[in-house]
Amino acid sequence: MKGKFISLEGGEGAGKSSAIHVIKAWLEERNIEYVLTREPGGTPMAEEIRELVLASRDEAVAADTELLLVFAARVQHINTTILPALAEGKWVISDRFVDSSYVYQGIGRGIDKSVIDMLRTSFLEGCMPDKTLLLDVPVELGLSRVASRGDANRLDGESTAFHEAVRSGFLELAADEPARFAVLDASQTMDNVAEQILQQLSLLEKTL
Amino acid sequence: MKGKFISLEGGEGAGKSSAIHVIKAWLEERNIEYVLTREPGGTPMAEEIRELVLASRDEAVAADTELLLVFAARVQHINTTILPALAEGKWVISDRFVDSSYVYQGIGRGIDKSVIDMLRTSFLEGCMPDKTLLLDVPVELGLSRVASRGDANRLDGESTAFHEAVRSGFLELAADEPARFAVLDASQTMDNVAEQILQQLSLLEKTL
Repeated sequence: MKGKFISLEGGEGAGKSSAIHVIKAWLEERNIEYVLTREPGGTPMAEEIRELVLASRDEAVAADTELLLVFAARVQHINTTILPALAEGKWVISDRFVDSSYVYQGIGRGIDKSVIDMLRTSFLEGCMPDKTLLLDVPVELGLSRVASRGDANRLDGESTAFHEAVRSGFLELAADEPARFAVLDASQTMDNVAEQILQQLSLLEKTL
Repeated sequence: MKGKFISLEGGEGAGKSSAIHVIKAWLEERNIEYVLTREPGGTPMAEEIRELVLASRDEAVAADTELLLVFAARVQHINTTILPALAEGKWVISDRFVDSSYVYQGIGRGIDKSVIDMLRTSFLEGCMPDKTLLLDVPVELGLSRVASRGDANRLDGESTAFHEAVRSGFLELAADEPARFAVLDASQTMDNVAEQILQQLSLLEKTL
């Protein structure tokens, strides 16, 4: 039996790490084998591509270069990690997937949605998540969470307007594909968010 | 005045390096500023991508991963090296460009031409060579040249059939775009090939 593929998306302070812990515990209770992975990355080569993208350098990186590198890493991730795991019946939980490209390369770096659609159609056909959990949180709250965990330096240089654009970008993607996305209200308590996640996992389990 | 962009293509032993020397001498005689570059590569970041593509690794590299990496390097090459040089009026001579993707990633790794066409349309619009010199040589002769310069180890693992497919792949591309391509008979003596190159350069100079 083929496993299920879940991706997690959301802005800063949305609680993706906590969500992954909840999913992990649920899978272990059921003795379901799983792979936790992330993007960009998820294979040794894809992690090398990630480093290349994230490295600070004097050379200006063209937006299209970044987009193509992220897609190269994604294709490698799919072929090396995701599809083999699913074929073995494992569940795959990925911290970010293609929706992050629409938001961070698309909105963040000004690349047309049509270009990303085209890359998705050409290269990701047959490997889209069964369910994408979008952890949605108001920007102020998300940023205050990041600040309170002493991680504020990672936010340098991004304006509130940018984070608002990220949030509404994700919500638009969810509205376009309501069957794939589950939008979770991540402004709630951790217990409440965990409940919302467990509900989605139960729904997904029923489709096995 | 905008400079000219020339790419060189051809299989093993076609004589690209000698051709570059001929072009270089011609440009220097005329005091034309130029940039000699190559693909994959041509910027520090694009050279890092090249190393990533060429590295030997245990992980199987998906054909689509390689294609996207090569295009990422190309886009970076265009933005960082080629377009700025052309804007300054310099001529740009690139050892390989997009046609090598059609042949080495397309034919070599079994990727549909339509996918490469799509990447070209989306990412290379406005930066195609003014002239592509295809150095065409029969496979046997090309391989014997490589062998005679003691460089035979680079040919390991590629069959004659592969080199034949490379050769006919390049010739088909040239037939599809006769205005951009000049097919040079590289089976001739170096002097004769140099003559053919100089003729193309003179034609190109007239379009300034």
